Amino acid sequence: MSPIQQDVDHSAEDKPASTSDGTMKAVRFHGKEDLRFEDIAEPQCGKGQIKIKPAWCGICGSDLHEYIGGPQICPTTPHPITGESVPVTFGHEFSGVIEEIGEGVSEKFKVGDRVCVQPIIYDGTCGACKEGLINCCYSNGFMGLSGWGGGLSEHVVAPEYAVFKLPDNVPLDVAALVEPLAVAWHAVNASPFKPSDSVLVLGGGPIGLSVVQTLKARGCRQIIVSEVSTMRKQYAKDFGAHVVLDPTEDDIVARCRELADGQGVNVTFDAAGVQSGLDQAILALRAHGTLVNIAIWEKRCTFHPSELMFREKSYLGVATYVQGDFQQVIDAISDGRLDMCQKMITKRIELDEVVEEGFKALIKDKDNQVKILVKGSGEI
Amino acid sequence: MSPIQQDVDHSAEDKPASTSDGTMKAVRFHGKEDLRFEDIAEPQCGKGQIKIKPAWCGICGSDLHEYIGGPQICPTTPHPITGESVPVTFGHEFSGVIEEIGEGVSEKFKVGDRVCVQPIIYDGTCGACKEGLINCCYSNGFMGLSGWGGGLSEHVVAPEYAVFKLPDNVPLDVAALVEPLAVAWHAVNASPFKPSDSVLVLGGGPIGLSVVQTLKARGCRQIIVSEVSTMRKQYAKDFGAHVVLDPTEDDIVARCRELADGQGVNVTFDAAGVQSGLDQAILALRAHGTLVNIAIWEKRCTFHPSELMFREKSYLGVATYVQGDFQQVIDAISDGRLDMCQKMITKRIELDEVVEEGFKALIKDKDNQVKILVKGSGEI
Repeated sequence: MSPIQQDVDHSAEDKPASTSDGTMKAVRFHGKEDLRFEDIAEPQCGKGQIKIKPAWCGICGSDLHEYIGGPQICPTTPHPITGESVPVTFGHEFSGVIEEIGEGVSEKFKVGDRVCVQPIIYDGTCGACKEGLINCCYSNGFMGLSGWGGGLSEHVVAPEYAVFKLPDNVPLDVAALVEPLAVAWHAVNASPFKPSDSVLVLGGGPIGLSVVQTLKARGCRQIIVSEVSTMRKQYAKDFGAHVVLDPTEDDIVARCRELADGQGVNVTFDAAGVQSGLDQAILALRAHGTLVNIAIWEKRCTFHPSELMFREKSYLGVATYVQGDFQQVIDAISDGRLDMCQKMITKRIELDEVVEEGFKALIKDKDNQVKILVKGSGEI
Repeated sequence: MSPIQQDVDHSAEDKPASTSDGTMKAVRFHGKEDLRFEDIAEPQCGKGQIKIKPAWCGICGSDLHEYIGGPQICPTTPHPITGESVPVTFGHEFSGVIEEIGEGVSEKFKVGDRVCVQPIIYDGTCGACKEGLINCCYSNGFMGLSGWGGGLSEHVVAPEYAVFKLPDNVPLDVAALVEPLAVAWHAVNASPFKPSDSVLVLGGGPIGLSVVQTLKARGCRQIIVSEVSTMRKQYAKDFGAHVVLDPTEDDIVARCRELADGQGVNVTFDAAGVQSGLDQAILALRAHGTLVNIAIWEKRCTFHPSELMFREKSYLGVATYVQGDFQQVIDAISDGRLDMCQKMITKRIELDEVVEEGFKALIKDKDNQVKILVKGSGEI
């Protein structure tokens, strides 16, 4: 039986408020370039659920993709699990403080606990879920994109399985970065990466930089980053890259071969999603190398199968995270293996500034931002 | 040190004969649509080498690709290992009888032995070779394509490591099929295939049909083939396919999902190399499914990374075979696990008929041929 569908009532959520009682502020996505700061009904905490006051919520590249060219991920017809379609509340990278515990929730949670939320929505019954691949659920979705509210609001209700308690030494702002870090952590877990490998990371945005930090935490021998922005190149160095290349100045293929035993890198993580990067990355791999795609591409790409075939290279798509990844990231932050996370936060704004100071600022000033965090009411 | 370069002298091979002494007939590729039946110098058997009279030699899709649109694989500048460039003798799928043993060759070989030849040429010293990936050697080539002669001639000299003795119950004509069968066998070995999987095979040509036979020999639960030619569809059924679909009539994606647990196939082997097949194959895979490319594509293909990413599918290039694959195929033929091989031979011709009855016939009549074998002088 679905871990979600069995006993959770989300019917009151994410509907525009019909009365002035029990309303809250939320940032809702109505469609392309239409993001509104508006009043909606405050969600009720049902059985098996935990109600949270968001403390900090990050703006993600996926949010930006939806805003600029969506809806693509956000449902335009009722989502098979949430039953919702646009408008939906945004925000899937968030931390917060528990304000209410639903019936039947484990005693390990209590009001006032500091937590972060793993936003995957899955049915728990499909073939993928049955094998533990909740990220590949044939009906999957995300809180903050597919319904069930999101972190860019004053209150949010999540199923118990989605809520992770924070150790005392993990601050709530850093906890809002667990989600993008878990994407990177999972990509490394899902790849054939070994610490002795040479690794190329395409792109020094939030995900690329999260991959760099993860690789450093996992003891990677050689981390090479390809990035054009001056600021991001500096971040890549600060976060653990051994070599930072600029594809507008360096021959990425020749440099990777030269740096990596004369053969090329073992693994490439594509966190850029551009054709020229893919072309270089395939050639920069050594025999039996793997290209791991984490990037969300806006359109089709091309490649020549022979370039993968004659050296038996592979291309692996990875998406989000499975159970285990969130806790591993929280542990790595807490024990200091991931020690540069706070430096990813380049700007902090208020909930009512999200459109102008968040989305529009990111579009204009993308190369000089890593992560913009939005402050909620749950900071303690 | 290279297993080949150390003590082998190929300088007399594959040069046009300068005298009437010691010449032989050979089918040589000079360039696009220029294949000649001509006299060349008979090769000398050097140290570490074995001289063979070819018995049967298959015409391969790669040969046809070179003839129609090459040289692509065949070197136009001196090959880094063979030192040769076009014209080169064709024929890399062949069996034969040993006629001479070079100095230093193991005593297990003797004149009169029935053998087949694993045609990979590798340097043995590069990073790939050091890891046993001789098929990914950064300088690799093939007898019959890159120099060192080929099976479409009266005599050929091969390094000892390339020669495999045949059990008494493996006939020489079937032994000429070991090479294409080893391509399929290796592809299955290199893939994540398990006997409990549902598998889709794109294309029912010689390689696709070899994959079908290999999957059957390995106990595959469900083999689905997508093919258009009536004759090849019948072969696919005869060789072990449980379901044969026609992409001009069937919805491959819907049918694969329906047939394979409502989710799609676990593995697809692409032995067709066409865009529409690739598009269907990606969608026909279940979560964490793998597309294995064996096809030689003539041009770039396109795909949407999201189609691989959101269900964590992968694309794996595989090429030829590594040490071990040839012997495994010979053993599987000998012990009856591969029991339909002889049926792949649809036509037999003489060496002087190769251009008209071999290449031109295959171009005209591709859909009604599986494997055309060319008879040599080594049949006993």
